[in-house]
Amino acid sequence: MFKNNINFKVLVRVLGSLFLLESIFLLITYAVALIYDEYDQNAILISAGISGIIGAVSRLLTRNSNTEIGKREGYIIVSLVWVFFSIVGALPFTLSGAIPSYTDAFFETMSGFTTTGASILNDIEAIPHGLLFWRSLIQWLGGMGIIVLSLAILPMLGIGGMQLFTAEVPGPTPDKLHPRIKQTAKRLWLIYLLFTIAETILLLFGDMSLFDAVNHAFTTMATGGYSTKQDSVAYFNSAYIDYVITLFMIIAGTNFTLAYFGLKLKFRKVFKNEEFRYYIGFILFFSLIITGILYFTGTGGLEKSFRDSIFQVVSIITTTGFATADYMQWVPFAWLLIFVIMFFGGSAGSTGGGIKVMRIVLAIKNGYTEFKRLIHPNAIVPVRFNGQIVSPNVITGILAFVVFYIFIFITGTIIMSAIGLDFESAMGSVIATLGNIGPGIGKLGPSANFHDIPTAGKWFLSFLMLIGRLELFTVIILFSPAFWK
Amino acid sequence: MFKNNINFKVLVRVLGSLFLLESIFLLITYAVALIYDEYDQNAILISAGISGIIGAVSRLLTRNSNTEIGKREGYIIVSLVWVFFSIVGALPFTLSGAIPSYTDAFFETMSGFTTTGASILNDIEAIPHGLLFWRSLIQWLGGMGIIVLSLAILPMLGIGGMQLFTAEVPGPTPDKLHPRIKQTAKRLWLIYLLFTIAETILLLFGDMSLFDAVNHAFTTMATGGYSTKQDSVAYFNSAYIDYVITLFMIIAGTNFTLAYFGLKLKFRKVFKNEEFRYYIGFILFFSLIITGILYFTGTGGLEKSFRDSIFQVVSIITTTGFATADYMQWVPFAWLLIFVIMFFGGSAGSTGGGIKVMRIVLAIKNGYTEFKRLIHPNAIVPVRFNGQIVSPNVITGILAFVVFYIFIFITGTIIMSAIGLDFESAMGSVIATLGNIGPGIGKLGPSANFHDIPTAGKWFLSFLMLIGRLELFTVIILFSPAFWK
Repeated sequence: MFKNNINFKVLVRVLGSLFLLESIFLLITYAVALIYDEYDQNAILISAGISGIIGAVSRLLTRNSNTEIGKREGYIIVSLVWVFFSIVGALPFTLSGAIPSYTDAFFETMSGFTTTGASILNDIEAIPHGLLFWRSLIQWLGGMGIIVLSLAILPMLGIGGMQLFTAEVPGPTPDKLHPRIKQTAKRLWLIYLLFTIAETILLLFGDMSLFDAVNHAFTTMATGGYSTKQDSVAYFNSAYIDYVITLFMIIAGTNFTLAYFGLKLKFRKVFKNEEFRYYIGFILFFSLIITGILYFTGTGGLEKSFRDSIFQVVSIITTTGFATADYMQWVPFAWLLIFVIMFFGGSAGSTGGGIKVMRIVLAIKNGYTEFKRLIHPNAIVPVRFNGQIVSPNVITGILAFVVFYIFIFITGTIIMSAIGLDFESAMGSVIATLGNIGPGIGKLGPSANFHDIPTAGKWFLSFLMLIGRLELFTVIILFSPAFWK
Repeated sequence: MFKNNINFKVLVRVLGSLFLLESIFLLITYAVALIYDEYDQNAILISAGISGIIGAVSRLLTRNSNTEIGKREGYIIVSLVWVFFSIVGALPFTLSGAIPSYTDAFFETMSGFTTTGASILNDIEAIPHGLLFWRSLIQWLGGMGIIVLSLAILPMLGIGGMQLFTAEVPGPTPDKLHPRIKQTAKRLWLIYLLFTIAETILLLFGDMSLFDAVNHAFTTMATGGYSTKQDSVAYFNSAYIDYVITLFMIIAGTNFTLAYFGLKLKFRKVFKNEEFRYYIGFILFFSLIITGILYFTGTGGLEKSFRDSIFQVVSIITTTGFATADYMQWVPFAWLLIFVIMFFGGSAGSTGGGIKVMRIVLAIKNGYTEFKRLIHPNAIVPVRFNGQIVSPNVITGILAFVVFYIFIFITGTIIMSAIGLDFESAMGSVIATLGNIGPGIGKLGPSANFHDIPTAGKWFLSFLMLIGRLELFTVIILFSPAFWK
């Protein structure tokens, strides 16, 4: 039982501060829009004003509030931030007329903040630069948010085995490095910023414009996948750019504590981490199989087959969603493998979505252990991760998460099918959004978009993006009557 | 660790006895073949002879063996029985020339003994009566085998939460009723026989021929689904027959201990059982939704919509596989619901396959409990079933089973897709066999058959039938090196 009533005042106050933050980022976007001098300037400025006024009023009204945030307030804030940010973040698209339907604009914005990357746009190049920048920036902000959330806040809330993360990463955990969340957050954001700058510079070397380089760096590091081009990364038609983006997608799908060790050149620590080794192992395993398939069934040479294969595998397993090739054009066996890794997702503590490598690995390890238990019924056979014994409660939590994830996937597919999608596209739309990937399968592959999904479907898929991003339980617990007692 | 080396002599002896049993049933089939006087007589007699000789020699060679069967011998015998029975049981089909390919005959026979019902035949009416009778009889024998296995042997081996069954059924468990397995088995077989006779008589009232009535009663009670007609139950075009078969499919998908109470008119005990209530609840829930869909999208009236709906729902959830309508012709939303219940399966301790209602319910209940645990992190929130607390070990075993089942489903789909099936058909072929259902989705719906699957695919699907039938772990444990140490 919770000890106190919900502290609504602190909720309003925290959300008010976040609205002020969104207002500042909208003003930065306004500056970009001024440079390009297109029709989106007023819409962005008005949105910044609305966000700023909401933020200021919320803070003024709650000046003397008790600032203590409990666990329950934590759940509510985490879920509401993404929703409110999307409600306001969608305004520039609709006010400017670039995306006339508010449903579409909300979908596009929720897809941004959740780093999903599913788009309703069918002519991206027609959108003014300011709005394109805003579209990439919200992904970058969403990525930032999720790192802090997954490394600092969710473990404390005890969501689906995520507490394992803080306990089991080798070496000092972020909390121990910097006992206060604020400091941890600052350190993580700095790393995130550094990688974004590094990628921007490397992309500039590949003859990308500064605008495209910044945008793609934003959405790579967020594993978001919004591109400034309708053809995504395929537009640039450059092996160099493909490999640079592949490398940074791999980094973005890595636990950020490990990325920190990597930056400090402590590679031994990185490679000692079991989740990282499986993550790299999965990427190589699937890339090499698909390279073989593409080489023998396609027209490209070995290098092109390998590059297309590893780019798409990394793009999907990290849930980024960039495309250099349309895997729905491959033989079914190849895109089926892509479909399978849609469930894997990135590492815990990265910006990637999906079930997460750690949970997949622990589910497999526990399955193996079940056999050992059958053979030696009286022996205690623990599951180990990073050399440590994982408690049975955490295992049950992880298995429950996997089963619940699949349950939502199935229910979602039924609902999307009732809305009118064919079977493959229904599955594709659900995993693309629930896994925060972007492209799916069927009629929602990499070269398609979500424009023609019925309105009800767009709102439902937006909800799936949210619960997928926030590890399911965080959001759904709010619908449990016991939570509000 | 196991205390002793594997007792190979007792393995040979037990399997020898079972070969003698198969020989006897082949002789009964020979008697049926004599009545109809078709070309299959010699093939059946020769097969009976081969089976009898193998059995007799095996028993003679092991006359003085130690008759103690340990846990490890249990695993081996259980898996081998199904394989050896199918190897020999396929002979009549090939020797007679009715099914020239031995691969096809083995597939058909394994599909029989595992009560799957997937068929490679595309002209069932052309098969002589003796072989048709054998085809139904092996399903009936397989069903008998599985009841004894799931109620008496698997709980002792501790497979994936099945031990729960013996512990938690209200009232005296089969073991306590009759402490020795042999007696329990006899009692269960008697109930099985009684229901088969009752259904035969009721079908005779519906103007079925005695031959068709016996065959359909055999394959209903086994939840097997082999029909003597290419069009399955739709051939008879009779509302009475549809409802009779629906009723007996429901009985066959019920825990046989409950069926025993039902026979003794102790209905209160039956309805108090939680798995039974969920089982009936699932059937009504899905039947009513699909009735609505069929009524509004189809051309039949309300009764016809309801009858088609409940027949198909019951046929699939019990994993029987009879058809009175081709659900692949329904709107996608309707057949998608059918696809979902393919994973459910019948009750534990019934002849039905699939994941089993008990495991589905416990996985859902545990998911709900996870929420409670998040809200009250320090409280102990147990999962209850039939009013009893389920131990966390059993829950972990059940969740691991569900995850492992889905893992095999996904891997199987990839393999069948590599063999050349399209995505839907690959999924359909795997769940149809792994779940011991018969018909699947895609090009393997109720009005299709498995004739055109490539040879490698037929052997792989036969393997899936086996592991699906024996609760996965029973078979796969044999491939674990630790088992043989």
